[in-house]
Amino acid sequence: MQTFSYDQLREFTYTMLRKIGCPEADAKIGTDVLLSADLRGVDSHGVARLSGYVRLWEKGRINATPNVRVSYETPSTAVVDGDSGLGLVVAPFAMKVAIEKAKNVGTGWVSVKNSNHYGIAGYHAMMALEHDMIGISLTNASPLVAPTFSKERLLGTNPISVAIPAKNQPPFVADMATTTAANGKLEILQRKGLDTPTGWVQDKDGQPTTSANGVKDGGALLPLGGDREHGSHKGYALGAIVDIFSAVLSGANYGPWVPPFVAFLDPLPNLVGEGIGHFFGAMRVDAFRPADEFKSHMDNWIERFRSAETTPGNEKVLIPGDPERELEVIRMKEGIPLLDPVVKDLTALGERFGVKF
Amino acid sequence: MQTFSYDQLREFTYTMLRKIGCPEADAKIGTDVLLSADLRGVDSHGVARLSGYVRLWEKGRINATPNVRVSYETPSTAVVDGDSGLGLVVAPFAMKVAIEKAKNVGTGWVSVKNSNHYGIAGYHAMMALEHDMIGISLTNASPLVAPTFSKERLLGTNPISVAIPAKNQPPFVADMATTTAANGKLEILQRKGLDTPTGWVQDKDGQPTTSANGVKDGGALLPLGGDREHGSHKGYALGAIVDIFSAVLSGANYGPWVPPFVAFLDPLPNLVGEGIGHFFGAMRVDAFRPADEFKSHMDNWIERFRSAETTPGNEKVLIPGDPERELEVIRMKEGIPLLDPVVKDLTALGERFGVKF
Repeated sequence: MQTFSYDQLREFTYTMLRKIGCPEADAKIGTDVLLSADLRGVDSHGVARLSGYVRLWEKGRINATPNVRVSYETPSTAVVDGDSGLGLVVAPFAMKVAIEKAKNVGTGWVSVKNSNHYGIAGYHAMMALEHDMIGISLTNASPLVAPTFSKERLLGTNPISVAIPAKNQPPFVADMATTTAANGKLEILQRKGLDTPTGWVQDKDGQPTTSANGVKDGGALLPLGGDREHGSHKGYALGAIVDIFSAVLSGANYGPWVPPFVAFLDPLPNLVGEGIGHFFGAMRVDAFRPADEFKSHMDNWIERFRSAETTPGNEKVLIPGDPERELEVIRMKEGIPLLDPVVKDLTALGERFGVKF
Repeated sequence: MQTFSYDQLREFTYTMLRKIGCPEADAKIGTDVLLSADLRGVDSHGVARLSGYVRLWEKGRINATPNVRVSYETPSTAVVDGDSGLGLVVAPFAMKVAIEKAKNVGTGWVSVKNSNHYGIAGYHAMMALEHDMIGISLTNASPLVAPTFSKERLLGTNPISVAIPAKNQPPFVADMATTTAANGKLEILQRKGLDTPTGWVQDKDGQPTTSANGVKDGGALLPLGGDREHGSHKGYALGAIVDIFSAVLSGANYGPWVPPFVAFLDPLPNLVGEGIGHFFGAMRVDAFRPADEFKSHMDNWIERFRSAETTPGNEKVLIPGDPERELEVIRMKEGIPLLDPVVKDLTALGERFGVKF
C-alpha cells in the first residue's frame, strides 16, 4: 500500500487520457469523474480502472474523440448517443442535458446508448445539487448478477444514485449497487483469504456459497436481499428497472448482452443495442415548492434521522453520503492509498506510454 | 377461511364507501383500487383495511368529499393537495395528472400532500400502461421501520412500484416494500405461531430478533438487506428516497411524523406537513424511441430472463408481476379467500351501517 496525493493522481490520469487522444476538456472531466471515486472511497471505480479503459481504447471499443450528441428529444426527455466515447465523458454531457431540460420544464430525463463504464454513479447525480435540483443517475453494467432463481448472470451491479440538496446540512447522496455487496468488496476478501457473509454470492451451480472466489469461478453476485426469503426478488427487480431505463429506453445493450468491461472478453455476437446504457434525471425542487422551504425541511429530515437513538454498539445513524463525504475531506488532505497491484499496474501503464507514474 | 366472489366484495365495498359519503365516482374508483389488492394477493392492502379507513373517517381524519386539486405546477410537474381525501381516490387523480403532463412534454411527475393510505402502489403505476407509458408510484406510510443503526422507527414500509409496457408479453410490474418483508407477512407468521427468518425484525432494544411479534412488542421492521453486512443501508436509503420524494417535495408529513393508519393512535403533535405523501411518475416510451421498437425489446428482455437456466429446485425465473397476474386470473374465477378475523370485522362493520356482508 502506497499513498499518493490527489494532485499526483490527477496529473497522471489527465496525461494518460491525453495520450490516448482525448481532447483537453474531455480529459479534464474524465479525470475529475475517475478521481472522485478514489476520494470518496469507491476504490474499485477510480484510477484502479484506468488501465482497463486504456485497454478498451486499444481494442477499438472506446472512441477517444466521440461526437456525443442528442439523437432524439422532447421538452422533458432526450436520448444521447455516446458514439462509443468514455462513459466518464458521455455521462456528464447527458446529465447537463437533463439539467437544461429541468430549467425549462421542471424536470429532465435522459437515456443514453453507445456508452461505456461511467465511473461512480454519484458523481453525475451530484451535478444537479448546485442548481437546487434532485439528481438521479443509473447505469447498467457487465452481467455478473444472477436474478432470483437464475443460475445465469443476466444483470450488472446496476447502481442507483440519488442526490438531494439541503440547506445548512450537507446533501443526501445515496449511491449503491443493487446487489448485496459490490464486486470490489469481494476482491478485498479474496486478497485477505477471507470468506464472504451469506447472501453475497452463488457458485457456478447456482448454490449459495461464502467463497470470495465464487464469482471468479463462474458463479454470480446476488441481488440485494441475497435469497428469496430475504427479499432478493426486490434487489433483482431494482437491477432490472435500472437495466430497462438505461438500455431498453435508449437502444443500448441490456441484460446478458451488455459488453464486458474487461478488454480480454469480447462482446456477445448478435448484440441487441449499442454499447452500454445510462439513465439520468434532474428535478428542480422549486418545480414542486419554493426551494428554500424544501431545503429547510431537508435539514429537518436529516437532523431528525441523524439524532435518532441508536442500536447497541453503534454511535449514530448515518445519512446516505456521510461516509463518502467524510473520507473525501481526509483523502484530499492526507492522500489516496493505492494497493500494490494497482501501483504496479499504473506504473506499467505509464511506462508503455512514456508517462512517469 | 371463507371465499367470496369478486362481485360480492366489490358490491359491499362500494356500498360502504357510499355510506360514509363518498360520491359515486369516488366510491367506484376507491373500490377498484382496494379490490385490486385482494385479486393480486396483497391481502393486507385490500378489503381487510376497509374498516380501518371507515374508522379514520369517523375520527374526522378522512374527508369523504374532498376537493382534490393541483395546487402548483410546471409543464412536467405538479403538487396535488388531497384535502384529506381517501388515498384510494387521491392517488388515481394524481396519476392522471402525471399522464396528462407526459402526453404534453414527454414525462409527468406529481408529488402529493394531504392524503391517506392509497392501497397497493402497483395499481397507480399500472394506470400508465394503456397509454404506452412507464408508470412509477411511491408512497410513505406510518413509521414501522428502523433505519440501519437506529433503535427508533422512522420510516414506513415505503413501497416502490414501476410498471413497464411490453408488446406480446404481459407488462413488467414491480411492486415492493423497501423492507425485507412486508408487515402482512409478519401477521401470517403470528397467526401460525412461527418465527421469522433472520433480518426481518429487531426488538424494542434494537437487537435482532426472529419473533413475529417483534414489531407489535415495540420493535421495528428492518430495511431491505436486514443488517449492515447484508446491505440494509441500501434498503434504508431507498425508503428514505421514497419518503423525501413523497413528502418533502409536496409538503406532507415525513419520517416519524407520518400519521398512523390506525385510528386508535393519534398523529404526533407539531406535524411538519399535511397528511401523508405520494409520488407518481409517467414517462411516454415514445419520448425516447418509437413505442413499437421499445415494446419489442421489452418482449425480448422478458423472454430472455424467463427462459434463463434455473438454480436447483426452482422451475423458472420470474418476471416482476408474474405471480400477482397469475393470482388475479385465479381469484377472479374462483373467488377471494378471507381470513376469519377479516370476515368477522367486515360483518360487524356492515352491521353498524346497516349493510349486509
